[in-house]
Parts: sequence; structure tokens; C-alpha cells
Amino acid sequence: MKQIDGGVTAASGFLAAGAAAGIKYHDKTRKDMALVYSKVPAKVAGTFTTNVVKAAPVKRDIHIIKTEETIQAVVINSGIANTCTSKEGELLNEEMAGYTAKQLNLPIEKVLTASTGVIGCQLPIDRVKLGIEKLVPLLEDTKEAGKMAAESIITTDTYKKECAVELEIEGKRVVIGGMAKGSGMIHPNMATMISIVTTDCNISKEMLQKAASADIEDSFHMISVDRDTSTNDTFLLLANGMAENSYIDEEGTAFKAFCEGLRLVTKTLAKLMAQDGEGATKLLEVEVVHAGTKEEAKVLAKSVITSNLVKTAVFGSDANWGRILCALGYAGIEFNPETIELYIQGDGKSLKLYENGMATGYSEKEATEILSANKVHVMADMKMGKEKATAWGCDLSYDYVKINGDYRS
Amino acid sequence: MKQIDGGVTAASGFLAAGAAAGIKYHDKTRKDMALVYSKVPAKVAGTFTTNVVKAAPVKRDIHIIKTEETIQAVVINSGIANTCTSKEGELLNEEMAGYTAKQLNLPIEKVLTASTGVIGCQLPIDRVKLGIEKLVPLLEDTKEAGKMAAESIITTDTYKKECAVELEIEGKRVVIGGMAKGSGMIHPNMATMISIVTTDCNISKEMLQKAASADIEDSFHMISVDRDTSTNDTFLLLANGMAENSYIDEEGTAFKAFCEGLRLVTKTLAKLMAQDGEGATKLLEVEVVHAGTKEEAKVLAKSVITSNLVKTAVFGSDANWGRILCALGYAGIEFNPETIELYIQGDGKSLKLYENGMATGYSEKEATEILSANKVHVMADMKMGKEKATAWGCDLSYDYVKINGDYRS
Repeated sequence: MKQIDGGVTAASGFLAAGAAAGIKYHDKTRKDMALVYSKVPAKVAGTFTTNVVKAAPVKRDIHIIKTEETIQAVVINSGIANTCTSKEGELLNEEMAGYTAKQLNLPIEKVLTASTGVIGCQLPIDRVKLGIEKLVPLLEDTKEAGKMAAESIITTDTYKKECAVELEIEGKRVVIGGMAKGSGMIHPNMATMISIVTTDCNISKEMLQKAASADIEDSFHMISVDRDTSTNDTFLLLANGMAENSYIDEEGTAFKAFCEGLRLVTKTLAKLMAQDGEGATKLLEVEVVHAGTKEEAKVLAKSVITSNLVKTAVFGSDANWGRILCALGYAGIEFNPETIELYIQGDGKSLKLYENGMATGYSEKEATEILSANKVHVMADMKMGKEKATAWGCDLSYDYVKINGDYRS
Repeated sequence: MKQIDGGVTAASGFLAAGAAAGIKYHDKTRKDMALVYSKVPAKVAGTFTTNVVKAAPVKRDIHIIKTEETIQAVVINSGIANTCTSKEGELLNEEMAGYTAKQLNLPIEKVLTASTGVIGCQLPIDRVKLGIEKLVPLLEDTKEAGKMAAESIITTDTYKKECAVELEIEGKRVVIGGMAKGSGMIHPNMATMISIVTTDCNISKEMLQKAASADIEDSFHMISVDRDTSTNDTFLLLANGMAENSYIDEEGTAFKAFCEGLRLVTKTLAKLMAQDGEGATKLLEVEVVHAGTKEEAKVLAKSVITSNLVKTAVFGSDANWGRILCALGYAGIEFNPETIELYIQGDGKSLKLYENGMATGYSEKEATEILSANKVHVMADMKMGKEKATAWGCDLSYDYVKINGDYRS
């Protein structure tokens, strides 16, 4: 398996496009719609937000994934989330799918939708339709087209997020590639904000869903920007079979290889999302080792990455390790504070901050240097068992407050 | 029952003092130690943090409250939390209690301790002892002395927090008064940061603990500044019986009256803590009405006050109600987003923002005016049942990041 350039168009038979439809942004030349298309029907799997409040596209996608074996296109807009928009929002979403289907000569149920942006506004459907008309002729299987699509789905993100890998399954080259948007309202609890991953792998719908559901547990579920689980979380995985590997319809070596490839793509996208959290200046990576169970390791790691006090200390490059210990302590997991150890790592340096129930004699200067790196790694050794987990988040800066104090204007 | 001036010295027989011991702050004249003393032994009740990581004074207080019927003094320092300080920290805490006991001619087990401030530093015990020597001769039963004590326990708080009430129990005047410190690392999960409440009520230890444990559920447990449950949460309730009301050792009218008085004191202190959260410019009050159960109402209200996205929107006076709905939605409680209603209230005005699954046609200008008030009230009508709850928090501002990005320097 190796990482390659590209995103949603990396796998055979997938086309994409991005365009500016003028849906919401002041800058009407800003790209805000994307289309992903498979030349042949693609098996589809997905995971979605657990928020009780669900966007119109989320509700429709959930229904289609339950009833359809394959789909062929996904149309996405940014700027407006189409959430809390009641029946009218559902009808507009249906219209967005229907108009895309018409332009692509597909039945409406072969088109999924996704929206991201401000909650509570209705979609300006005329502009959306003009956007769709722009997108269809732009569809291409090039890297550039995948990049355009990735750029079109971002909101407060500062850069596009793409990743692709190639692997060999029984002599055939299989490619998995994807894109994601993140930034704010990120605390996945079934999926992530919006991520579309495509593959030419020949695999059954059942195994595809199994791979998607298992995968998110260690990727999208392990990131948080602000502990707010979005109403629009959508992770779609499309497989069109064009790699012509022998059909995967059960567990085994081939399925395992596919899952490993998928994991690399989603983990990379997840980390990119954490690193580009709203206002973030640093990626915060928290690794919990020697926990009693895998679940406990995850809960502990997530408790630390979501603590506002830890996040502000990391922003200030302040080795206030007491806050890390405090966040471990309120995670709801029993442990002995007298035996655990805490380390920080950054820029290739490592420093033990805490052992035997108290601070080590570490140098504050050295700690501040490590915490000034743009990727800060915290390791907590729980001394309890054999399990470990890693979670990714970011620091909490003035810019998070600035961005969110007046997001809608 | 009526609210009166004063704090921990309002009830008969309670003395207090505050002094500068130079424990931690650059400004060595800043008061950082307080002493509360009862002329006669006082029944004692308490609730403490549920954080696995507990401060040395918390561990000792929990033990004493289990084994002693009465205590007579509480000595408190700010600046250093005496948490994550291992055996050495426990010995220093014991020394702080012992030295106070010696100066007051009390057995050591009649003295409780509390600490608040930076985690991980050892107490400078010589300075603490000099502080105790200063405090003892300053002990007075005046309002001024209570105020000095309240000022001495604050850290990043911007003002002292006191409240007192008087009530009549079977013809006798009973007074309950208290002080608290809050500001950061506030997400009580068994108690609050540090609050000492004193009363001259004549009541059994058992009923006192019952009152304390029930009380916090609707007061200290319903506030949050940053979702970080502190390692030092301590709520102590002292009753010295000097009001000479007939002994309360069972439920009934007298106990109920006492609980109501206590509730007014603790709720007032809790709201003061929320309003003075680190960097806060506004008090955020979230009321959930017509919930199915009381517990559900509480969980929903707390989900909204702890959302960073809601808090930053309130800071920016931005009526981004979708974030409120989103926070209700991920609270883990089932409800119908199509039927609930959302209101905001401030400066005597009220505005309905959401009903029938979508935005009302409210005026953004009016909404911004309401949200610019220094106390913002959000009401969510769940249309499910008869229960309600209120939670208190604050906005998330640049100053929260500033204060916590470099708290230790």
C-alpha cells in the first residue's frame, strides 16, 4: 500500500467537479458546489450524525442507503446547511437531487446530497440549479477536478483536504481516495462533518458498510475541534468495482487489505480536519497507552483533546500539565494518579513532565520549546494494561472566538 | 425569608479573616488566605469533586467529614491548588491544618482545609504559617471580616461572591450565609469550586448532609464555565446551632424552610460564579421547559450552556439559534425538532426565534439588541411534558483564551 496524489477522482471511473453558484458567500466567485460522479453504479455505504437534529440531506441519504444497493452521484453545497428548515427544506433538497439526476440522466434515487454551512436558512434553489448546470459539463476524472471538488465543499476551513492510496488486492491495483471538510462543529459521533471517499474496489454493499462503520471508530470518531456534534455529519463511501479485483463479499485477506487502505485515507483526512480546526495554530495529538481497555483509552484521549483549558494552554505553549491530568481525571475512568506518567513531544524532542504523583524536575524552557511546535504530541502512560488509542484536536485561539463570535456576517 | 447583606459571618457565632501570605501572586500584598471559625463546634457536611485526581485538602476533608460530627475552623489558600503533589503535598496540607489548630487551640481534626490555584506546585509552608499567624488575630464576626475572607479565596475571579439570608424557624431567627470562588475549571460534578456556607441553625449532621447533597443538584451542579471539572471542588456547610431553634433531626416544615434558605444562598453564589466565568462578558441562563423528566431538562439545559459555539455566538450577540438547536440535539435526549420552540430574552424583551421546524420571521436587529444585554436568557420549550430546569453559564470571549493561554505566568 502506498499513498498517492489525488482525492475523489483517484480511483478508476470517478469524475468530479467544483463551481461557484453564489449560494451564500459575499464573494460570488467563491466555489460552493461540488459533484462526484461514477461512470457505473457504485455500491454505497455511509455513516451519519447521531444528533437528534438532522439536516434534510442527511435524512434523505440515510433513507436511500437503506433502500438502494448502488448510487451514481453525490451533489454537495457549502454555505447553507439545510438544517432546521422543516418540510420546505426537505422539498428543496429533493429538488436539488432531482435536478442533478435530470442533468445526468439518472433516476433521482441514484443521487445523494450533502449540505454544510449556516443552520436555519433555506437553499436558494434557483442558484443551486444554475450551479448544477455549471457542474455537469465540468465533470472530469483528473486530479485537478478532484481538487476543485475538495475546494468547493470547505467553509471556514483554510485549506482543502484530500488523500488517496493504492494497494494490491490479488494482483489487481485498487485505489481509494477521498476528500473532507471540517473546521467547526466537529465532534463526530457516528461520522464526521462531510467526507466522500471513492474506490474502484469490487466489494459487496454489506462489506462496504462494514468497512465504513468499523473504520470511523479510530479515525473520524477520534477527532474533535469544539465538542459540538454537527447536524450534518456525513461520511459516504462509494465503490464502483472498476478495479476488477475478485469480488469481496466476506472477511479475509482482501477485505483486510481494503480496510487498511481505507484507514490510511480516513485517518489522514481526520488529522487534516483537526489540524485545520477553526482558529487552530497547532495540531494536538493525544496518545493514551497502557490503558485497561481500548474503550477506556479512547475516552481518556478524547477527554484531553476536548478540554478548553488544555487547548488554551497548548495555544499559549504553556506546560500546564495539571490541566491534562485534570481532564484525564474527569473522564469517568478510574486510575491511580500516583502511578501514571505524562510526556510531551514536539519537533523531535520528548520530555517527561509528571511521574510518581508529582512534577518531574523538567525545564520549563524546554517544555515551552516543545509546545511551540506546530504539532504537539501528548502521551499519557496509564500503567494499567495493554490498550492504547490516539485522538486528534487543536488548540483554542483568539481566532476561534473571532470566527464564531460572528460567523454569519 | 429575606436576603440580607453579608457572607460567612452573617450567622451567629461565625468569625472570619482574610490576609496576604505571599504564597504565589507577584503582588505580595494581594490577599490569598482566609480563615472561617465558629465559636462553638459546628456540625459539618460537604460535597466534593468526582474527579479521579483529587487535591490533598479534598482527600483529607472527605475523611474528616466521614469520621467527625463537628469541626470548628476552615483554613483556605488561593494561588496553589495542592493537587498532584503526592505524599509531600499531603504532609504540607496536614501541616497547614495542624498549625491552624495550634494557633486556635483546637485538635487538628477540628480544622478543615481548602486550596485553589495552580495544579502541581508544592505549598510554600513557611509563608502559609506566617499567613495563619496573621489570620488568627484578625478573626472577627463583622461583615467586613466576611468580605475580607471572600476576597482572599478568589483567583481569576473579578469580584468576591457572597450571599446571606435570614428566615424564621419556629419563632427563631436563623441565618445562612456563604462565600464562593469560581471563574475557571468550572463544571461541578458533585459540588463547585470552593464554597463555604455557614449557618447558626440547630440541625443534625445527618440532615445537614442531606440538605447539602440535595441542594447542589439545582445550584452548583447547574453551572459551567468551561466544562472542566476541577480537582479541588469543595462545598462545605457548617451549622453551629447558635440560633437555638428546636433541633432539626428529621424532614418536616423546619427542614424544608432551612433547605429553601440554603437554596437561595447557593443559587445566588452559583449564578455569581457563572456570570464571573473567566473572560465572561455576559451571564447565559438557559431554561428548558416542558421536558419529559427533570433529568432530561437538566441534561438539555447543560448541553446548551457548555457549547463553545453557543457561547461564542452569545459573545458576538449573534442570534445563531441553529447552534442552540444543535446543542440540544446532541445531548442524547430524543425530541421532535419540528415541534419545539426557542426564545431569547434580555433587557425585558422577549423574542421567539424558532417554531414549526424553522426560523420565525424575527428581526435580526431586535435579536442582536436582546443578545447585547449583560444577562441573556434562552428558553427552549420541548413540548414533551411538565418538567423544567435552568442552567447558568457565560459567553466565551477573547479574554478566556488570554487568561488561560498563559495562566501560570
